[in-house]
Amino acid sequence: MAVLQQEQLVGLLKRYEEEMIQLRRHFHENPELSFEEIETPKTIAAFHRALGHEVREGVGGNGVVAKLVGAKAGKTVALRADFDALAITEETGLPFQSKIKGRMHACGHDGHTASLLILAKALNQMKDNLAGTIVFIHQHAEELAPGGAKSMIADGCLEGVDVIFGTHLWAPTELGKVQTAIGPFMAAADGIYIKIKGKGGHGSNPSDTKDSILLAAQFITNLQQLVARRINPLRPAVVSVGHIEALNPFNVIADQVYMKGTVRTFHEEERDLLEREIEELLKATCYLTKADYEYEFRRGYPPVVNHAAETEHVMASARKVADVEAVEFVDPTMGGEDFAYYLEEIPGAFFFTGAKNPAWQEVYPHHHPKFDIDERSLRIAANVLGQATLDYLAKDY
Amino acid sequence: MAVLQQEQLVGLLKRYEEEMIQLRRHFHENPELSFEEIETPKTIAAFHRALGHEVREGVGGNGVVAKLVGAKAGKTVALRADFDALAITEETGLPFQSKIKGRMHACGHDGHTASLLILAKALNQMKDNLAGTIVFIHQHAEELAPGGAKSMIADGCLEGVDVIFGTHLWAPTELGKVQTAIGPFMAAADGIYIKIKGKGGHGSNPSDTKDSILLAAQFITNLQQLVARRINPLRPAVVSVGHIEALNPFNVIADQVYMKGTVRTFHEEERDLLEREIEELLKATCYLTKADYEYEFRRGYPPVVNHAAETEHVMASARKVADVEAVEFVDPTMGGEDFAYYLEEIPGAFFFTGAKNPAWQEVYPHHHPKFDIDERSLRIAANVLGQATLDYLAKDY
Amino acid sequence: MAVLQQEQLVGLLKRYEEEMIQLRRHFHENPELSFEEIETPKTIAAFHRALGHEVREGVGGNGVVAKLVGAKAGKTVALRADFDALAITEETGLPFQSKIKGRMHACGHDGHTASLLILAKALNQMKDNLAGTIVFIHQHAEELAPGGAKSMIADGCLEGVDVIFGTHLWAPTELGKVQTAIGPFMAAADGIYIKIKGKGGHGSNPSDTKDSILLAAQFITNLQQLVARRINPLRPAVVSVGHIEALNPFNVIADQVYMKGTVRTFHEEERDLLEREIEELLKATCYLTKADYEYEFRRGYPPVVNHAAETEHVMASARKVADVEAVEFVDPTMGGEDFAYYLEEIPGAFFFTGAKNPAWQEVYPHHHPKFDIDERSLRIAANVLGQATLDYLAKDY
Amino acid sequence: MAVLQQEQLVGLLKRYEEEMIQLRRHFHENPELSFEEIETPKTIAAFHRALGHEVREGVGGNGVVAKLVGAKAGKTVALRADFDALAITEETGLPFQSKIKGRMHACGHDGHTASLLILAKALNQMKDNLAGTIVFIHQHAEELAPGGAKSMIADGCLEGVDVIFGTHLWAPTELGKVQTAIGPFMAAADGIYIKIKGKGGHGSNPSDTKDSILLAAQFITNLQQLVARRINPLRPAVVSVGHIEALNPFNVIADQVYMKGTVRTFHEEERDLLEREIEELLKATCYLTKADYEYEFRRGYPPVVNHAAETEHVMASARKVADVEAVEFVDPTMGGEDFAYYLEEIPGAFFFTGAKNPAWQEVYPHHHPKFDIDERSLRIAANVLGQATLDYLAKDY
Repeated sequence: MAVLQQEQLVGLLKRYEEEMIQLRRHFHENPELSFEEIETPKTIAAFHRALGHEVREGVGGNGVVAKLVGAKAGKTVALRADFDALAITEETGLPFQSKIKGRMHACGHDGHTASLLILAKALNQMKDNLAGTIVFIHQHAEELAPGGAKSMIADGCLEGVDVIFGTHLWAPTELGKVQTAIGPFMAAADGIYIKIKGKGGHGSNPSDTKDSILLAAQFITNLQQLVARRINPLRPAVVSVGHIEALNPFNVIADQVYMKGTVRTFHEEERDLLEREIEELLKATCYLTKADYEYEFRRGYPPVVNHAAETEHVMASARKVADVEAVEFVDPTMGGEDFAYYLEEIPGAFFFTGAKNPAWQEVYPHHHPKFDIDERSLRIAANVLGQATLDYLAKDY
Repeated sequence: MAVLQQEQLVGLLKRYEEEMIQLRRHFHENPELSFEEIETPKTIAAFHRALGHEVREGVGGNGVVAKLVGAKAGKTVALRADFDALAITEETGLPFQSKIKGRMHACGHDGHTASLLILAKALNQMKDNLAGTIVFIHQHAEELAPGGAKSMIADGCLEGVDVIFGTHLWAPTELGKVQTAIGPFMAAADGIYIKIKGKGGHGSNPSDTKDSILLAAQFITNLQQLVARRINPLRPAVVSVGHIEALNPFNVIADQVYMKGTVRTFHEEERDLLEREIEELLKATCYLTKADYEYEFRRGYPPVVNHAAETEHVMASARKVADVEAVEFVDPTMGGEDFAYYLEEIPGAFFFTGAKNPAWQEVYPHHHPKFDIDERSLRIAANVLGQATLDYLAKDY
Repeated sequence: MAVLQQEQLVGLLKRYEEEMIQLRRHFHENPELSFEEIETPKTIAAFHRALGHEVREGVGGNGVVAKLVGAKAGKTVALRADFDALAITEETGLPFQSKIKGRMHACGHDGHTASLLILAKALNQMKDNLAGTIVFIHQHAEELAPGGAKSMIADGCLEGVDVIFGTHLWAPTELGKVQTAIGPFMAAADGIYIKIKGKGGHGSNPSDTKDSILLAAQFITNLQQLVARRINPLRPAVVSVGHIEALNPFNVIADQVYMKGTVRTFHEEERDLLEREIEELLKATCYLTKADYEYEFRRGYPPVVNHAAETEHVMASARKVADVEAVEFVDPTMGGEDFAYYLEEIPGAFFFTGAKNPAWQEVYPHHHPKFDIDERSLRIAANVLGQATLDYLAKDY
Repeated sequence: MAVLQQEQLVGLLKRYEEEMIQLRRHFHENPELSFEEIETPKTIAAFHRALGHEVREGVGGNGVVAKLVGAKAGKTVALRADFDALAITEETGLPFQSKIKGRMHACGHDGHTASLLILAKALNQMKDNLAGTIVFIHQHAEELAPGGAKSMIADGCLEGVDVIFGTHLWAPTELGKVQTAIGPFMAAADGIYIKIKGKGGHGSNPSDTKDSILLAAQFITNLQQLVARRINPLRPAVVSVGHIEALNPFNVIADQVYMKGTVRTFHEEERDLLEREIEELLKATCYLTKADYEYEFRRGYPPVVNHAAETEHVMASARKVADVEAVEFVDPTMGGEDFAYYLEEIPGAFFFTGAKNPAWQEVYPHHHPKFDIDERSLRIAANVLGQATLDYLAKDY
């Protein structure tokens, strides 16, 4: 029975592969920015309706949730794909390049959506043998904090769901590989926004001023100790200041300096510690001259923390997929994802599906104007997610 | 004889005081930027010609040199006044406020010029008793490096001159005071322009980058040692970074940082040392990550170094002026002046003439949109310069 | 058969538990320093000889290797215990406290040795049913680099050995727990020894000197960036300076500063990078004043990197031991162990055996004068190592 | 009359020069440490008594005050010489080298005393023509804070005194030169004593500690800003840390660091500012980890601030001395002297008498084991002090 289902899934996905690719190219040509998605969710909803799925639109904003109910009772599995694009002008020169300047699917969400839609179509045809329910979560606004996941959860998208799976098409990883980690897999991605408010003056006369550029320099220099000495060395963390700004004539002492940066962690303990100690260091730095500061630690997504059993489950399913050549447990990445919110609510796992064409000499990173994926990765992603769903519903938990 | 001359000078300056003030207000209403002076030098030249002085226009650019030859042979004394204005929009609300937005005599050069012109008129009437020659150097472009002094000297304005005197109307000093110092009196004012060229990347991934903001921070932090430990503590020096710029999204590691700053010294030894060691520190800072840099040390004016005997001479003359209530030897200031170039060529002295109205609650600094002077300072300045000239010509060197 | 062996092992270890404890207390009372062990290896050799084992003394220095040959041919398993003590004066007040001031078994090696000896006695009685050989590696000098492991290997202690297992009685972990990690489990522990050679002078006269204390301060301040920004954040690393020395009168500028510190890493890549970049930073720091330095990166033990299959093997065996309440995969620790060398040669695994009495309020860390272990941990350690041996020999590889 | 006296003084000093040198050598062979002087003050007192001077011993400790009353009434001039030695073992190899290991007149105080005694002998012979009184202040303990000056003043040594003069034989300055400055001439010399109290631990485990070596490094690095940016650049100041101490094994994180250093200033404003801001910086540095500190700012001697008229007086007298080839107004030095206390009480001046033999290739600095002076400087010092005294008593104030 299980083996039959497995073969059936493979066959259906192959049959609809061309449709999947066309869908992806359609989304690719018509990117919509985070929180501004209108046509994409309409297309998604129409697709599911055509399959006879129960569809809810406008979930938590622009999200779409569709439900496929199997013939028999059973567990409920959610599968998630995000569908927003980025404010980037595409430079790939592909025939199906973005029609809109300043907007681009430069992160593969077009592929995520097409892949999940076709998987839904395939599973729909297998529903007579399915014991349980499959919830397709089409999420808007993954690229921009606070993201769509949080509000979709608040709007009930996880109600009754037992487990959730999701994947990211991953350009740095070769086609045929599937990668994940148990526990922390993607980092919390927070922002720091700092203004040091000293006292300006003439460049020849420092003793009457509170030199805010010097304060900023001391702050950034001493900031290195937070990762190097204040954090457990076994807990990865990054603090980067990427923007600094005090635009004055050469012979002036700066009144103010504005800085922006990012903090990456995998655990709330380090996240809280860094939020607190960055401010403490700032306070200490400003103390000597009694300069003022403003400090904002803007929380982005929490870390993506994969549940152990569910991660092993999805990897076991992946090993059954013929096109998957390697299942790898890898180091976590310092990047962020709002899939994290789902995993805070219910068990589940997130993984990377390799999308790098082995023949490519150069791989453009995600968010690059020349970013591209090997479209064969779409079917592999659908197959792994589909197989994990079948295995989960078949399992006797 | 000397006492007679002294009284005559005082009388003439008092007689023409109103004209002096009107002249100043005329210049004040019609400011011209450095190196763009057209009408001001014309007015100056016409004034001297009307007195019958030998006049040379276009000296070293827009400068004017006029010569008053006394009845008897003797030494040659040069007196210098600058006449350019600043790119500032005046906010004083004075009845004779600048007629031009974005241009203002916010440093007193209008007063310098009016004062010297009326002094020329007074001395002209005393020429029958003068043994020697007086050269009036009306200098353009003091505010903007490379300044007008250098080119006027190259164009011969100091030929045959034995000594030079000059003054600055000084708003922070009370009316009635005259201040100077023997030796270094005003600082060399140089500019530093630095670009650190690291290697950018994503904020979550520092080990693949050369974080140029961190390099800039370490550079500025360690820059403090140059003044604190590398310079003779008895030799005043200032190094200030006033501009820093790396404008990126929050989650980026900066590719480049651009900085501007100023260096102030009183002696070539420290000036050379700082020019050299700032670059050495930059090189050392960039060394670890093999980041690149660009470095420019742009020399402004040299320090104003007053000659001892000439400074004592002009202060002795100042003590004879009834309106001078105090002659003070003061600490040098960290500001710069291209009068420095004259003093590199021939003996002479530069001093401050107090221009602060004692009733003012608040004094706006030079270069401020509300900058103002007590106009009574003009006559005092003329009187001290005039008396110093008379005394010099009378002296048996 | 396997179950019978398992029960037999448990029974024998229980039977000899009192002897094991007495042996441990004997070693505890008579500690011998690293590389100075004389009586301990004699006692060990005599014990094995009494069992009829083939014994080799003086292996790679003071090491002892004994061999138990099973009735049938099979694989060869090595088990390792270290037996040196520390230069610490014991303060436990135990009845069997060290008899020698300044020497103490403050790391549990007395327990390791007693545990392995009694395990040898037990396995000896089971030899008729054993298919294979067991090599007991009693290692001297674990506490002091270069350690005894390296020379014992050079002297052939691993010849013919297929796999090696070892454990450390671990005071911070509760009795009944067994902990390990696949891959890096304990860190490389290297030393840095640095001398900055500036130019001294009088404290009032910094510009004639090269202030080596300031150079040291800048070096240590900027050292933080190595861990924070030069190392992959997913690769744990620590750089600590623990000793700094420049002993002068208050009014002097220091000629020299001497520093010592430690570097901890889990991979050769970071180890090499830090060795190199610490020196580069030192060079950069000294560059401005052209000060000199001396730098030594003294390599201690490499990281203990557990082999995956062998680690899972030993943990599977541990789960069979009734007294083992929990088998935990934990984060690696930053401490070092020369068991690392064995794992560079052949497959194997190292693990911690919990030795903390659950009733203890306070646990004294390893190397503390009040360090102690719950003696029940000895039998658990022996049981896990013994079971892993039985399972390995029984397995069909 | 004045010229006669002048010639008489010169003649007497020449006549007694050999005695002066023998006296100096006697003191040189028998050095006594600060506050431990016994024989030296006895010798001094006996010398003055033999001249018939009124002598007070034990003044403010070990000081000696002698009084020569002129034939006529007049002003009272004090002349001061110090007589303590240093805890240094002499390495000059001179025939009259110190007889005591670990004690040496390595600062010229032997010469000061011999010079003043012979001057007293000469003036004594001129007393019939003197209008006024001369007080010879032989001060103990100049080398060691709190010094002897303060207690001698408290014990009345300046009572009735109108003016005080003193000199230091100065090895870096060539024989024949006399140097001084109006206003600040020697610096305030204060001590800082700092303990940073963090929390120690194992070198592999920084996040559980408060790394006091890192705190010390950040403190010293950021200390540079105090002189570079917090102090008026026209006010010389030096802050040097000369001692740092945290002596631990290489693999430890330091619990505590102890530092000592010196602060040099010329004005109370900067002295107070630095006392305050060094502690503020220390507090700020410790703030992040909530480490503790101890801070002591131990005030040494205040700055030597020469009075203008008295300095010009003594230099005018110096110009009359035939052996004085040059009278120079020089930059102040950052060294300290407790002559400062006298100048806080009454008018006076302190100057350097050049003591460098022009033929010397290398000059050993004061406090060096090979320190030496050209003995001809003794008579010059006596002559200048004597002439200044004669001129002062002759003057009609």
